[in-house]
Amino acid sequence: MSETQPQSIDLLIEARWVVPVEPHGMVLEDHAVAIDGDRIVALLPVTAARKAYAPRETVRLPEHALIPGLVNAHTHNPMTLLRGLADDLPLMVWLQQHIWPAEAKVIGPEFVRDGVELAVAEMLRGGTTCANENYFFPDAIGATYRKLGFRAVVGLPVIEFPTAWAKSQDEYFERAGEVHDGFRGDALVSTAFAPHAPYTVSDESFERIRVLADQLDIPVHLHLHETAHEVEEEKRKSGLRPFQRLQKLGLVNDRLIAVHMTQLTDGEIAACAEAGVSVVHCPESNLKLASGFCPAEKLRKAGVNLAIGTDGCASNNDLDMFGELRTAALLAKAVAQDAAAFDAASALRAATLGGAKAMGLEAKIGSIEPGKQADLAAVRLSDLETQPLYHVASQLAYATSRHQVSDVWIAGHRKLAARELVGMDVEAILARTRAWRERIATH
Amino acid sequence: MSETQPQSIDLLIEARWVVPVEPHGMVLEDHAVAIDGDRIVALLPVTAARKAYAPRETVRLPEHALIPGLVNAHTHNPMTLLRGLADDLPLMVWLQQHIWPAEAKVIGPEFVRDGVELAVAEMLRGGTTCANENYFFPDAIGATYRKLGFRAVVGLPVIEFPTAWAKSQDEYFERAGEVHDGFRGDALVSTAFAPHAPYTVSDESFERIRVLADQLDIPVHLHLHETAHEVEEEKRKSGLRPFQRLQKLGLVNDRLIAVHMTQLTDGEIAACAEAGVSVVHCPESNLKLASGFCPAEKLRKAGVNLAIGTDGCASNNDLDMFGELRTAALLAKAVAQDAAAFDAASALRAATLGGAKAMGLEAKIGSIEPGKQADLAAVRLSDLETQPLYHVASQLAYATSRHQVSDVWIAGHRKLAARELVGMDVEAILARTRAWRERIATH
Repeated sequence: MSETQPQSIDLLIEARWVVPVEPHGMVLEDHAVAIDGDRIVALLPVTAARKAYAPRETVRLPEHALIPGLVNAHTHNPMTLLRGLADDLPLMVWLQQHIWPAEAKVIGPEFVRDGVELAVAEMLRGGTTCANENYFFPDAIGATYRKLGFRAVVGLPVIEFPTAWAKSQDEYFERAGEVHDGFRGDALVSTAFAPHAPYTVSDESFERIRVLADQLDIPVHLHLHETAHEVEEEKRKSGLRPFQRLQKLGLVNDRLIAVHMTQLTDGEIAACAEAGVSVVHCPESNLKLASGFCPAEKLRKAGVNLAIGTDGCASNNDLDMFGELRTAALLAKAVAQDAAAFDAASALRAATLGGAKAMGLEAKIGSIEPGKQADLAAVRLSDLETQPLYHVASQLAYATSRHQVSDVWIAGHRKLAARELVGMDVEAILARTRAWRERIATH
Repeated sequence: MSETQPQSIDLLIEARWVVPVEPHGMVLEDHAVAIDGDRIVALLPVTAARKAYAPRETVRLPEHALIPGLVNAHTHNPMTLLRGLADDLPLMVWLQQHIWPAEAKVIGPEFVRDGVELAVAEMLRGGTTCANENYFFPDAIGATYRKLGFRAVVGLPVIEFPTAWAKSQDEYFERAGEVHDGFRGDALVSTAFAPHAPYTVSDESFERIRVLADQLDIPVHLHLHETAHEVEEEKRKSGLRPFQRLQKLGLVNDRLIAVHMTQLTDGEIAACAEAGVSVVHCPESNLKLASGFCPAEKLRKAGVNLAIGTDGCASNNDLDMFGELRTAALLAKAVAQDAAAFDAASALRAATLGGAKAMGLEAKIGSIEPGKQADLAAVRLSDLETQPLYHVASQLAYATSRHQVSDVWIAGHRKLAARELVGMDVEAILARTRAWRERIATH
């Protein structure tokens, strides 16, 4: 009986630790991920991998943890160009006197393209490989993600007033259909409906979205219960809490990506669990805008799928998912009054598989499992900031900074190599960023 | 009339921006800091500086903000060796089953020396130049700071039970006196009394501390109102809240550095302002241990001097003052329900001059002013993570990561040069750190 020939594959990544996220809480030592084309073929001990595979390329990560690429489950990436434009202001002053006038001045395909390019560079340098995007001009946004080889679900905006993107309800839906068709079958970019919020979207539009989302089989990405004020206003107008209104309209189901959710009754939490709603927690935005505290641990305990998002750079002011998952884990403990709440493994899960599930991509990404896409991030843990090292998951959640991300792959393609962005011209991105700053700062 | 000769100085640092902290909120463009010996001689426009001074060394920072070195106003730096040893646990399980047994195994001069050395390396790489230290074996701790040229106020522990450091009340005070004498007149290291907390220190000890702190003219560094439980227990025992008990004992005065303070009545806030108490806010520790929320904005508005501390690495898990001041600024807004609360300039002030004032060092450090010590940190803002740049203070508070700190000076000596630690053997520090990990992890 002859020995089996080693199988030819594209890439073998050998890592000191692998955190596959599924099974939950597992940390593997001296394991390798075998990759062929865009897919993970196997996850196995390094010694076994060297016998089983003949890779065209081998990457050795002797001081690193290899994790699934982080999934930013709520962001407005073109707004990266507005980072820090107006901070420390009450919400309405911030929006009405700063953000909206700036956007009115510059919004369009060029602005979203350059903003997304800056954002992709920042996300890759921080280990993020997938974004749930929510902004105007999704056609130009999606084209930019596609060009850069970055995975994204692009929101199809619906709002009840005219914008640079569309002038009427019909036009929003018409353009939504066009954009969806434009990315049908794309390997990296897909779409979701993105009705802005209950207070800016009519019952009629929500009903159209419910029907179309079913037909197209896409998620519905919605700001919901962001503030107590929002809930009070809706009760004043319709007699219902926004969540109740959505229940009545048939929107509370497993397509719903409910973002923020700082105001929740126990009944609403149970209803989210029952209906399979995903909740995206954006802790730093909620803190910075004084929106309130999402009951993340209550949601987790109720079995609700939790994801984590940075929100846009005008209210954060970064796209740092390591920072965000740490803030989520820390804040949840104080809110739950329980130091054991929302542990490190749960935070890592929310920032990867939780996001993937929210976006309907859990069969494709979010964990390191054979058959899934090779979306991966390597984190160097030998820096003195993460020494000594007792527990890998703890270190990743509570001590690691995003600058310790050394390498990133999306669909098997290396996007960051030893901290260098592959195929992106950083100087050109920075020059365009400075040019936008000149236009925006002077108005 | 002949032109004045340029004045000979040691060092001129020319920076794109200087944030002196005092005057509050000021950002200067293209300014230089002139340094001679350990002191700042002048802060003036670059063009004027080039005429006025003949420096032996010039450092140009064309893409950087120069700020006062950050002041970590509450830390237990030897515990850096316990980073991430036990996370996600209830407070008492964490302390009794993990931290105390680990400490019992290893505590001593070697442990504190190696822990402080690792901590100093981490602090310097994050722009921190001064620490308010609180741990056993202050003699070995202070000697380590002195050896490394790092500024610190070293706590003289007092606690009502025997430890490896001292066996009786008398021995704690005796050793406190010895350690204080050992650092009398030292340029960088001074002392404070560090009674552990109201629930572990007797009235008699507090009375001795009050008298001795006045005689020695040093601060009193105390964990206070960390949790609701602490307040309830004291009320049960003495009928008083801990703060009231300290008022009765004469400890509530401008020597008091009150750490944590998550439980405060409006009357107590007013009393802190009136008495000149400094409050050290440790937001990440308070979140991680589910201790509660410090009313930072209420304290600020009442005129209380606010400082920021990381707490020890066993409950944070880092010594990242940029991260800590950001968390403080974000959290304060949600707690105050006001997005305009605790703005960027106030957060930077708390993390520099506020800490200096708490430690009785406000005449010496905490701002960039002529006559003060040259304790400085340079932050590179050209990275894409901090672009575009609209407002320097905002960017420093809400978008900057500690790895953007490029250079650090303490008392005019360069301690970090283009991210490299000067005069510290990082490989040796890491080797010792790994050796401690082997001893601690296996017990």
